Order: sequence, then structure tokens, then C-alpha cells
Amino acid sequence: MVDYEKKELLYRGKAKEMFATNVSDVVWVHYMDQVTALNGKKKVQMTDKGTTNNQISSLIFSDLTANGIPNDFIKQIDANNQLVKKVQIIPLEVVIRNFASSSFERKFAVDHLLKFEQPVKEFFYKSDKLDDPFINDSQIKALNIATQQQLDQMRDLALKINQRLRTIFAAMQIELIDFKVEFGLDQTGEIILADEISPDSCRLVDQKTKESLDKDVFRKGLGELVPVYKTVLQRLQKVEGHN
Amino acid sequence: MVDYEKKELLYRGKAKEMFATNVSDVVWVHYMDQVTALNGKKKVQMTDKGTTNNQISSLIFSDLTANGIPNDFIKQIDANNQLVKKVQIIPLEVVIRNFASSSFERKFAVDHLLKFEQPVKEFFYKSDKLDDPFINDSQIKALNIATQQQLDQMRDLALKINQRLRTIFAAMQIELIDFKVEFGLDQTGEIILADEISPDSCRLVDQKTKESLDKDVFRKGLGELVPVYKTVLQRLQKVEGHN
Repeated sequence: MVDYEKKELLYRGKAKEMFATNVSDVVWVHYMDQVTALNGKKKVQMTDKGTTNNQISSLIFSDLTANGIPNDFIKQIDANNQLVKKVQIIPLEVVIRNFASSSFERKFAVDHLLKFEQPVKEFFYKSDKLDDPFINDSQIKALNIATQQQLDQMRDLALKINQRLRTIFAAMQIELIDFKVEFGLDQTGEIILADEISPDSCRLVDQKTKESLDKDVFRKGLGELVPVYKTVLQRLQKVEGHN
Repeated sequence: MVDYEKKELLYRGKAKEMFATNVSDVVWVHYMDQVTALNGKKKVQMTDKGTTNNQISSLIFSDLTANGIPNDFIKQIDANNQLVKKVQIIPLEVVIRNFASSSFERKFAVDHLLKFEQPVKEFFYKSDKLDDPFINDSQIKALNIATQQQLDQMRDLALKINQRLRTIFAAMQIELIDFKVEFGLDQTGEIILADEISPDSCRLVDQKTKESLDKDVFRKGLGELVPVYKTVLQRLQKVEGHN
């Protein structure tokens, strides 16, 4: 049984820090008590925010593992920390939309929460400098960001994740409006789910009250964020049998 | 032999007016002596501009017909007018890029005239109200604008058009940087090329002088537009054996 030690900082993101460990293909992830929006322009410290997201994402990734979705999650270490497999992140955000909201709603002037017959799939190029532009398959290939086969695999995995997440959230009386995931290449070159799945990366609406249960609470200044995230965690723990 | 008569105005665009004729599936197109840019915000009257584009587009569409590309062109009537088949326009602009320029160059911060290994293919949703947003296949289907089969057909036709246009322009010592086409459904439901192909819709660079030979001359205020368009027409007439 390996005893993992936290080593040097590899990368500091907006909500997480990644550290090397004493094992070459294992990374230590620290969920920070911090929330940002508008590509980092809005940033606030919040007690328990990191803990809550770490627990939510750990439960969801464990569930996805059990449901055959390859991902980088190894195990939760403690309140704010988890271990993941080292991957080479593909610099694309994959967005799946079940209902119209946010940028889609504004861009195409459609009704808020218009339901799509089939989920909408979008790629965004992860680049702070370029403001994460919306990008299509042809552009991705022209810029050598990914191959067509990788794009098809990511879309396919994202749709499977969507199906499983909708089932989980439905059991929590929550509607999954849309979400963002990222993928990476593991040591064997296989595409696996990486990063996190939490109310930071999902748009969630309470089926009864129609209230937002995600980062929109922060983006739109709708109230205290952490109590909302804790509600999501409590419902998730119940559904996953961890209460 | 039918004698076509111009009837009521059907539609006035930025550079063309469409009229009904005495034949139900034939439309009379009048090329106006007008040039616009920035989605119509910049507009100027220019003598001979309509004539020149009518001649250029007529020659190109005739060439495409001879090369097996289905399109709406019937015949040129006189300097400013032509007859086309009535089609139901699919509200998408299909853009093919052989080299990076303009919006692509700015969006992805790549070198001006970066050469793509494969042509880049993009769709834009034709909507003045929404400012013609960039759109992907999944969004197009969610908004019921076109089917996947229609999208694949349009892309395929646009690539064939690109191949033929590059051949024509190469013979004119011109590099085809990128271009925009539109498609419509004819009376049988078949997808055919519509609208026009001219320096209004192509980005063209003289292979020797590297000067712009297209609407960028107007957009960027680089000089007189019509003499440049006339140069393109003269070279095209020579290549097409109409001088």
C-alpha cells in the first residue's frame, strides 16, 4: 500500500491546485476555498467551498467509474484533497446542453430553458488569452488541437456522462440544464474524463422550486453559494448511499 | 422560347434585388450598383459595381454548371440582370477557408495567411438580428435549421466548389483565401448552390503583388473598388474564353 506524499506545485487553476506526488503518474489535487467567474475577473474566498466540491466531484466520479465511464479519479484523501491519474489535458471544454440557457439563449434569442430534442454538443478552445472561443471540428483539426477520432470519442463519452448525470440528478429532484467537462490522455493514450464535475461546472435547477443550485448563484449574485452547494452534496450523498 | 417579364419585387438584399417573373419557378435578379460592409452599416453607391459582379458571378456559375456543381443560374439577361431558378434558401452561410484571414485570424491569434492542410469549413446562421452567429452542426439541428444529411451535402458541395474555384483563380494568378456560399432547396427538394460568387463573397489575393482583389478594398478603405473588380472580371473572361 503506497503512502502518497504531496510534492511540488504543478499548476494553479481558478479553483484547484495540482501537485506532483512521490508516484510519477499520480497527481494530488487540492480544492481551494475560492470561487471565480467571468474568466477569473470575479473572485471570492469562501469557507467550505473547496471541501464541498471535492466531495461532490469525488462521489460523481466514483459513480461514473461504477458505470463504465473511464476517468482520472483515484480516491479522496481528506476534506479538500483527492488523488487523480496524471493525464495530458486536451485543451477543449466539451459542453452538453439539455435545455437552452446562458450563452446559447442569448446567442440564438431562444426561450429560457427551451428543451432540446437531442442534447446540443459544443467545443470551446481552452485559452484564457483568447477568452475560450467557441470552435468547430474543422477548426480544431486545422489548429492541430485534436483528431476527428478524438473529437468523436469525447462527444460520445460526454453524451454517456450526460445520460448518467441526468439519472443521478433526477433522483435528487434536480434538472441538469447543461454542463462542461474536460478530457485528457492517460499514460496509454486513452481518452478519459478529467477535471471535476460539480455545481461549478453544471447548471442545475431544483425541479420543484426552479431555483438555481449552481455557480449562477454567484455569477448573478442570487445569495450565499456554499449553503446551496451543501444542499446539492446532501442530496447526492443520500442518492449515492453515503449519508 | 419563353420571353421573361419582370414582375413584383420579392426581396431586396444588400447588393441584389429579386423579382418574380411570369414563370413561377424563375426569379429575376438585379445586381445593384451598391456595396455594403459591416452587416450593412457601411453602404456606398458605385457605378458599374452591379454590372461587374453580375458578369463575374454569371461566368463562375456557368463554369460550375459545366463542372457538375448543381446551382440556380439560368442565364444572364443584360448588364445588371440575370435569371435564376427559384429556391428556398437555407439560412446558413457556408465559409471555406484555405488560408487564415479576418475573423479566423483574430479569433485564434494565428499568423495572417497561415495555410491550412485541409480547408476549414464553417457555418454561420443568416440572421441580421443575431448578427449572423457562428454555429455548429449540433446547434443547427437543435434549432431545426437543417438536417445532418443536408449539412453534409452542403459541406461536400462547398469543398467541390472550392476545388474548382481554386483552379479557375490559379489560372488568373489569384490565390483564393476564403469564400462564402449559400445553398437552397430547388422545386424537387435537391440542395443546389444559390446566391452569387464574386469578389463580394470571396477573399482574393494577387499572387504576384499580394494585393487584395475583393471587398476588403472597400472594408479597409484601400482604394477604388470597381477598378479592382473589373481587373478580376477581365482575367476571368480571359480564362473562360469570353474576352
